[in-house]
Amino acid sequence: MDGELELIRRIAARVGVRGGVSTGIGDDAAVLDDGTVLSLDMVVDGVHVRRDTHSPADIGHTALAVNLSDVAAMGAVPVAALVGLGVPQGLSGDDIDAMYAAMERLAEANGMSIAGGDVSASPVLTLSVAIIGRTPAGVRPVLRSGGRAGDLLVVTGPLGASAAGLALLRDPALEPDLPARDALVAAHLRPAPMVDDGLHLGESGATAMIDISDGLLLDADRVGRASGLVAEIDLDAVPVAGGVAEVARAGAPDVDPVLFAATGGEDYQLLAAVPPSAGLEPHVTVVGRLVEGDPGVRATRGGRDVTPSRLGWEHRAG
Amino acid sequence: MDGELELIRRIAARVGVRGGVSTGIGDDAAVLDDGTVLSLDMVVDGVHVRRDTHSPADIGHTALAVNLSDVAAMGAVPVAALVGLGVPQGLSGDDIDAMYAAMERLAEANGMSIAGGDVSASPVLTLSVAIIGRTPAGVRPVLRSGGRAGDLLVVTGPLGASAAGLALLRDPALEPDLPARDALVAAHLRPAPMVDDGLHLGESGATAMIDISDGLLLDADRVGRASGLVAEIDLDAVPVAGGVAEVARAGAPDVDPVLFAATGGEDYQLLAAVPPSAGLEPHVTVVGRLVEGDPGVRATRGGRDVTPSRLGWEHRAG
Repeated sequence: MDGELELIRRIAARVGVRGGVSTGIGDDAAVLDDGTVLSLDMVVDGVHVRRDTHSPADIGHTALAVNLSDVAAMGAVPVAALVGLGVPQGLSGDDIDAMYAAMERLAEANGMSIAGGDVSASPVLTLSVAIIGRTPAGVRPVLRSGGRAGDLLVVTGPLGASAAGLALLRDPALEPDLPARDALVAAHLRPAPMVDDGLHLGESGATAMIDISDGLLLDADRVGRASGLVAEIDLDAVPVAGGVAEVARAGAPDVDPVLFAATGGEDYQLLAAVPPSAGLEPHVTVVGRLVEGDPGVRATRGGRDVTPSRLGWEHRAG
Repeated sequence: MDGELELIRRIAARVGVRGGVSTGIGDDAAVLDDGTVLSLDMVVDGVHVRRDTHSPADIGHTALAVNLSDVAAMGAVPVAALVGLGVPQGLSGDDIDAMYAAMERLAEANGMSIAGGDVSASPVLTLSVAIIGRTPAGVRPVLRSGGRAGDLLVVTGPLGASAAGLALLRDPALEPDLPARDALVAAHLRPAPMVDDGLHLGESGATAMIDISDGLLLDADRVGRASGLVAEIDLDAVPVAGGVAEVARAGAPDVDPVLFAATGGEDYQLLAAVPPSAGLEPHVTVVGRLVEGDPGVRATRGGRDVTPSRLGWEHRAG
């Protein structure tokens, strides 16, 4: 549904930013003048999750995780979240307990609190989570737009696991004996936000950052456009999660597994631009760099431009 | 649906408050250690609003207004809001423009910004608004729980207008020539959050405050219970909006119009407890006081206890 990006542009054109807010619509989170970051993401049954594959705990976990990921992408640490729950008929008290228990586990692991929210009857299970975070003293939130020519592009971990997990959930006959099967399915059902990595990257001087929610190439395109540069991604350098190549090939023999990984959604690793001089954690992988040119993304293989027309998933806007 | 209050208690029992948060679930807004207040309220078509009576602009206005009212009830001023929009099929771009234009007008009038959010397909029109606010330097957010015996209970304006407006919308044959008709309907469709009054009450030393979203008596009951006192409301002193008495009597001749006003929902006036020595704005009305006793509410008429069994509206929890 790429109408959602169009819709966000339409909405952004309708609203103005006033005193107290330094960054409004268009980044992973809004930023207040004092560096506070704020984000809100919705999870709707049948759109972002499916009750036939996601347990209530998976749904609760996912709803908070995608918001934590937005905070991570700003280089901030989460402080508190508010949860708006739309409750359809047939959702039991036990289901609700399981959802909040999963959110609470994730909140505790990240030293933050579920501090409020709202509940309402609704024809569809909906979780709207708003989150507030803060950067360490002296560190400004990292926007998508701060990249500079010559910066390295890095990712915080291997890609493609969530897309492969989704493929396995959709077709149980696909690679039934794959050793990585459970890990791939878990990557889809219980995404892990990279809060520590985002904090380290921000402290290390990252100039631009985004969470890879819609595919590396699409999110790199966003960083490139916001920074007015080309995000050049060397597909030969992109780390692919274990088992992803097998799933990609089993699903479609002619698919390039690296392209599958680089266009698959919902990995929630981070993509950051860092100056070449920045010190990086050992597990962070350089996948390209920012260069001058027509703003956007360029994917290369052995130096050749192999940028696909479909860059990633647009079902979830923002 | 009083199951919603039960549900909030159930959720509150599942989550813990950690460092950085001073007040979690259970007040009009959460409070962070630095005094920042945060709230989230959902508006779901068919539950809180109805597209057959509410225009898209009414719905947008209401969604932001109820959140502004939560900030007002803390004695804070709003800074930024995030809007999660669930878009059903059939909602047009013009409808969305009208919703955001109404929110933007209200944001501008309150000097705050719509700074982000999310959009998603959804089977039902849903607006989840999260809001952040701050109190003036030296003023702490006003909770429901700080009331002291002897404090006066005050309201910021006349009550019952929204409930009367709803009755008029539901039954167009009711009092068709009432001069106050348009004002009452507008009170229901376009509630006015009392941000300035909340700020003044907080600065004047209010010890407890709540917005009257579910009826004066029910919200007074909440302040009484949270403060461990009896909120004694003198119905003879309760200001009733013009035209409300006519609508109440036309709908049910045996209804006490003051009780109609004191149990009607969605007025979004504020109820505050203030020390007897506090200086009050002229339009603020004393309607009772906090006294020792079994915590809750007591409504009196000519000194007699006339507390009804149904205190207000519980369709909207929190």
